[in-house]
Amino acid sequence: MNAFGNIFRIQLYGESHGPCVGLVLDGVPPGIPLSPDDFIEDIDRRRPGAAGTTARREEDIPKILSGWFNGYTTGSPMHIQFANTDVRSSDYDHLRKAPRPGHADFVAHQKFSGYEDYRGGGHFSGRLTLPLVAAGVVAKKICDPMTFSARLEEAGGDPSIWPAIEQAASEGDSVGGLVDCIIDKVPTGLGEPFFNSLESSLAHAIFSIPAVKGIEFGAGFRSAKMKGSEWNDVLADASGKTITNHAGGINGGISNGNPITFRIAVKPTSSIRKEQVTYDWEKGEPVRLSVSGRHDACIALRVPVVVEAVSALVVADYLLLQKLWRVGQKGAGNQ
Amino acid sequence: MNAFGNIFRIQLYGESHGPCVGLVLDGVPPGIPLSPDDFIEDIDRRRPGAAGTTARREEDIPKILSGWFNGYTTGSPMHIQFANTDVRSSDYDHLRKAPRPGHADFVAHQKFSGYEDYRGGGHFSGRLTLPLVAAGVVAKKICDPMTFSARLEEAGGDPSIWPAIEQAASEGDSVGGLVDCIIDKVPTGLGEPFFNSLESSLAHAIFSIPAVKGIEFGAGFRSAKMKGSEWNDVLADASGKTITNHAGGINGGISNGNPITFRIAVKPTSSIRKEQVTYDWEKGEPVRLSVSGRHDACIALRVPVVVEAVSALVVADYLLLQKLWRVGQKGAGNQ
Amino acid sequence: MNAFGNIFRIQLYGESHGPCVGLVLDGVPPGIPLSPDDFIEDIDRRRPGAAGTTARREEDIPKILSGWFNGYTTGSPMHIQFANTDVRSSDYDHLRKAPRPGHADFVAHQKFSGYEDYRGGGHFSGRLTLPLVAAGVVAKKICDPMTFSARLEEAGGDPSIWPAIEQAASEGDSVGGLVDCIIDKVPTGLGEPFFNSLESSLAHAIFSIPAVKGIEFGAGFRSAKMKGSEWNDVLADASGKTITNHAGGINGGISNGNPITFRIAVKPTSSIRKEQVTYDWEKGEPVRLSVSGRHDACIALRVPVVVEAVSALVVADYLLLQKLWRVGQKGAGNQ
Amino acid sequence: MNAFGNIFRIQLYGESHGPCVGLVLDGVPPGIPLSPDDFIEDIDRRRPGAAGTTARREEDIPKILSGWFNGYTTGSPMHIQFANTDVRSSDYDHLRKAPRPGHADFVAHQKFSGYEDYRGGGHFSGRLTLPLVAAGVVAKKICDPMTFSARLEEAGGDPSIWPAIEQAASEGDSVGGLVDCIIDKVPTGLGEPFFNSLESSLAHAIFSIPAVKGIEFGAGFRSAKMKGSEWNDVLADASGKTITNHAGGINGGISNGNPITFRIAVKPTSSIRKEQVTYDWEKGEPVRLSVSGRHDACIALRVPVVVEAVSALVVADYLLLQKLWRVGQKGAGNQ
Repeated sequence: MNAFGNIFRIQLYGESHGPCVGLVLDGVPPGIPLSPDDFIEDIDRRRPGAAGTTARREEDIPKILSGWFNGYTTGSPMHIQFANTDVRSSDYDHLRKAPRPGHADFVAHQKFSGYEDYRGGGHFSGRLTLPLVAAGVVAKKICDPMTFSARLEEAGGDPSIWPAIEQAASEGDSVGGLVDCIIDKVPTGLGEPFFNSLESSLAHAIFSIPAVKGIEFGAGFRSAKMKGSEWNDVLADASGKTITNHAGGINGGISNGNPITFRIAVKPTSSIRKEQVTYDWEKGEPVRLSVSGRHDACIALRVPVVVEAVSALVVADYLLLQKLWRVGQKGAGNQ
Repeated sequence: MNAFGNIFRIQLYGESHGPCVGLVLDGVPPGIPLSPDDFIEDIDRRRPGAAGTTARREEDIPKILSGWFNGYTTGSPMHIQFANTDVRSSDYDHLRKAPRPGHADFVAHQKFSGYEDYRGGGHFSGRLTLPLVAAGVVAKKICDPMTFSARLEEAGGDPSIWPAIEQAASEGDSVGGLVDCIIDKVPTGLGEPFFNSLESSLAHAIFSIPAVKGIEFGAGFRSAKMKGSEWNDVLADASGKTITNHAGGINGGISNGNPITFRIAVKPTSSIRKEQVTYDWEKGEPVRLSVSGRHDACIALRVPVVVEAVSALVVADYLLLQKLWRVGQKGAGNQ
Repeated sequence: MNAFGNIFRIQLYGESHGPCVGLVLDGVPPGIPLSPDDFIEDIDRRRPGAAGTTARREEDIPKILSGWFNGYTTGSPMHIQFANTDVRSSDYDHLRKAPRPGHADFVAHQKFSGYEDYRGGGHFSGRLTLPLVAAGVVAKKICDPMTFSARLEEAGGDPSIWPAIEQAASEGDSVGGLVDCIIDKVPTGLGEPFFNSLESSLAHAIFSIPAVKGIEFGAGFRSAKMKGSEWNDVLADASGKTITNHAGGINGGISNGNPITFRIAVKPTSSIRKEQVTYDWEKGEPVRLSVSGRHDACIALRVPVVVEAVSALVVADYLLLQKLWRVGQKGAGNQ
Repeated sequence: MNAFGNIFRIQLYGESHGPCVGLVLDGVPPGIPLSPDDFIEDIDRRRPGAAGTTARREEDIPKILSGWFNGYTTGSPMHIQFANTDVRSSDYDHLRKAPRPGHADFVAHQKFSGYEDYRGGGHFSGRLTLPLVAAGVVAKKICDPMTFSARLEEAGGDPSIWPAIEQAASEGDSVGGLVDCIIDKVPTGLGEPFFNSLESSLAHAIFSIPAVKGIEFGAGFRSAKMKGSEWNDVLADASGKTITNHAGGINGGISNGNPITFRIAVKPTSSIRKEQVTYDWEKGEPVRLSVSGRHDACIALRVPVVVEAVSALVVADYLLLQKLWRVGQKGAGNQ
């Protein structure tokens, strides 16, 4: 259940305060040129340390431990691993009996019967998005020349972003944010409805990113208030180009050749210094709680590059699958 | 790619104007009591014929052709089939060269190289949601005593619903709608993050329903504008009950014991009588188009029972999977 | 668990004495020409009625109920259904409390808690191989110009086959048989090790055929007694052609361009008229049993065409997957 | 394609001469007690160094890098990694243009277009079975109190084993072997036919082990020569115990409560010092070849513990799945 994809497929592992996090990427075609430098830009965009993000720092250097030889992918599974080097587990030990509101502490304890690694969120930690970003770099290469561009549109309801984050941080509080994403130069025909529509698969991947609570494609929720004569995108030419893009580049679950556009809602970080009320399992009564660790005031700041990465994973998978449909008539064995 | 689910799994087939639509439901536990009458209520809720829905009528009687014996499920795959009896294919033939705006005509032609069954939307037709509703009936039995309640909240932006639909219908136009859903009596612990979070899987299934363009859980898009101190749901007791439910019953991708709540945006029906512009592939120029067939003025009217059905498919699957986590320590072989 | 394949995938359903058996075939490329006549030859090869096979007769006419339009596959799931028309359920009712030796009666009752459809073997019946043969016809078209040739090599240890079968039939007994299969004109490179080696996938499919108890590739069990210097096939030229074929056309789990060869062991039919001993659950004591229904004296007679069919399903799947490996370097998005 | 299992699932990675080999094990129930010492016995059984096995030595110490906390499994994916410390890549470089007979060199080059890591067999190396043995240790814990016992029955056709191996080694040659396996204390009901019969899944896993060319269950190939009245195992009591075990503990693809028995054929090691003929791609002519590296004279010596491991992976997966069938009637939600 920690795997995703049809034929281009990732298997994720690791915990926030264990020795490492990483993933195995299966179904990578051989012959893709790849160097460690290719990972730098995207990993830097996710890195904590800017105002509003946690003070925790890690080297964040990917080690490619298999499936890569002489500068190219080999076709065997790629294992990409990141060491966890800056771990202070004692920050979390006192939280066990009184779960942090809004966090996975309570459900993890219930689901895993108390055996879960609870340090720093364990397997639920945002740190798990780091190997996703690395996998996204490989996926973007497969998707070339498509482009993936996500950005933070507003934070705490404020399009100027930083004032809202700084104010929340100064109050020991946090804010949510809106992230939009545009995928450009998408070929027509990607997506495998009925159940693996492109929207289904993108939404599936996006909701795996911790803190995402909503997604809409194209006109999204505005669609519900529109008339058909307004909503329908008029074809401009035989290539499928449309004058408007209310569909967000997807009809019937399949890419229509226009840019794919979607927007997601990211909830505010759950862990805040500001005092909250929770329930103490041992005492059997409500208690006050101030979460003292290192936390992002706006986790949404770090989400855009992760959104690009998981989108690229989905699109690369469907791009490879799409090749299967070019077979018919002549007999596949002839080709 | 027309299959969905991990161990409780459906395989869908059929076209709008072919002889039948249906599905095979694999992984159904043996011993579930089931009678043909059990399907009536939900199938009636989806049935066309009310104002605002298409005039096309079908018997909509499910035939259970396997996996069912002496009134109980057997544990073998259940095949549920619906005949297509009221088909007028000639309505659609002239649309081939000029794709309907907002519809899958263009992408299907591209993806399937012209071999697709284009009559009535073919495999993209809303008729495919009929077997989904039948599968939902079986899933709801597995989930008992959980309850699934979806309803149309507003149409065309109007909470009184019917005036908006009637006006659109009178103009040969259509309107979108908002559908909300509440799943109650959900046990804690359902969902299999990282990638099979409950939100991921529900969103995946929901976006398979034609015309859905957005989904949000709990506070959803409002979360993006909130502070952590507002958003975090305070635990009321040791059972996990929370005072608010901004999380929509899901933390860290796992059900937390509170009701699961989500809302979806349904776009307006693409096929409208009102004249639109499209592009004629043969003429190589824009043409005017009025879609004359039988169409819903508000497809969202028929969506709620489908939303319940696919939600129940997801929840039943995870409910069965959840049993696997109760194994440890003693050695599964002892149990 | 009644589905098989990676991207070219079948979902099987049905019981021996239910209304029908059939399957849904997903991932079929669009544009493959197909007519009902294409199924006749292979279905005839499987048909009962010859000496040594059961007297049960069915029309065995496939109905293609979806995914097929104007003589071509469409790319949507193909549903192929066979009606069960010659069913005499009363033959089986008395067998419930005393399971037939060698048959699935006992395990089915245990696994499905008594809810299984026990008539005629239910979902365990050899009748389920009929839709497999139909699916094989589609798969062989995809694999064209490859050829699949299986034949019964000996029955009851006797290469002259019929004397052994006739003698067993005259005694109310049955015999097993050896079936060999050659797949010719196989391209190099099919198979996806580590776990989806071509041998793994062929063996997986073959052991799904009821009554198969062994499989060996190339030199098979003789390999265990050979030396490396004898076993290793010497390359004759740069195309990969080898002088001997002890490998059965597969090295490292991947086709090497030589014919794929394998042999399977089919056990004797379990249901025999000759008196046997079994255990009566209700009486709690051993009882004598003579199975009176219509049964094949040598089920292996009907197996070769089924072996070809499931082999073609596997090979077609890997043939489609193989196209994914031709991507690298240039960026898949460019192609 | 380097993953295996339904819900208890492994993802393998690594190459013989890369930095490490390992796997991620997903779907492990939480709360299974586990210590590094638990791995010693099985890893020692696979270790090279005895007469007839390669002189290559590695520490073979498993590092558990995730999914394990305070001595128990957590329910998150387990990553088990082995460093490759004794690697001499130069041994292999000269083999590229002249593939070793019987080995995967030729097909790997074809399939991966020359991008494969060819050193020491790369991803095709027998070293990949080391993490499988580690995963088997975890699987055996889940299956407790079942037992898995595989042994080498004969080598080069000789039941006294060592004389045959020593003679082959002295000639720079190699020999194949027969391995049998007994799984005891197996509960009734494991296996998920139609396609995931227990024989199908065991055969699938076993044929993933390099060098396996045949498998037979119970009476296996002898079945083909037997009569039904001989072959059918007579039930001894109501528990399903049978007097003979020609079925090898499996009827209709489902375990019947008797020991599961099977035998496999292992081909002789392909790499031999003795001079062979192969084809040189560059010269375009046959050349003589003597493979000088460190190689096992009888790879079958190291296979038994690997057979146990992959069998335990299959059985653990089906044991967990089996729990799903105990649901019916009452509604799963009540449990």
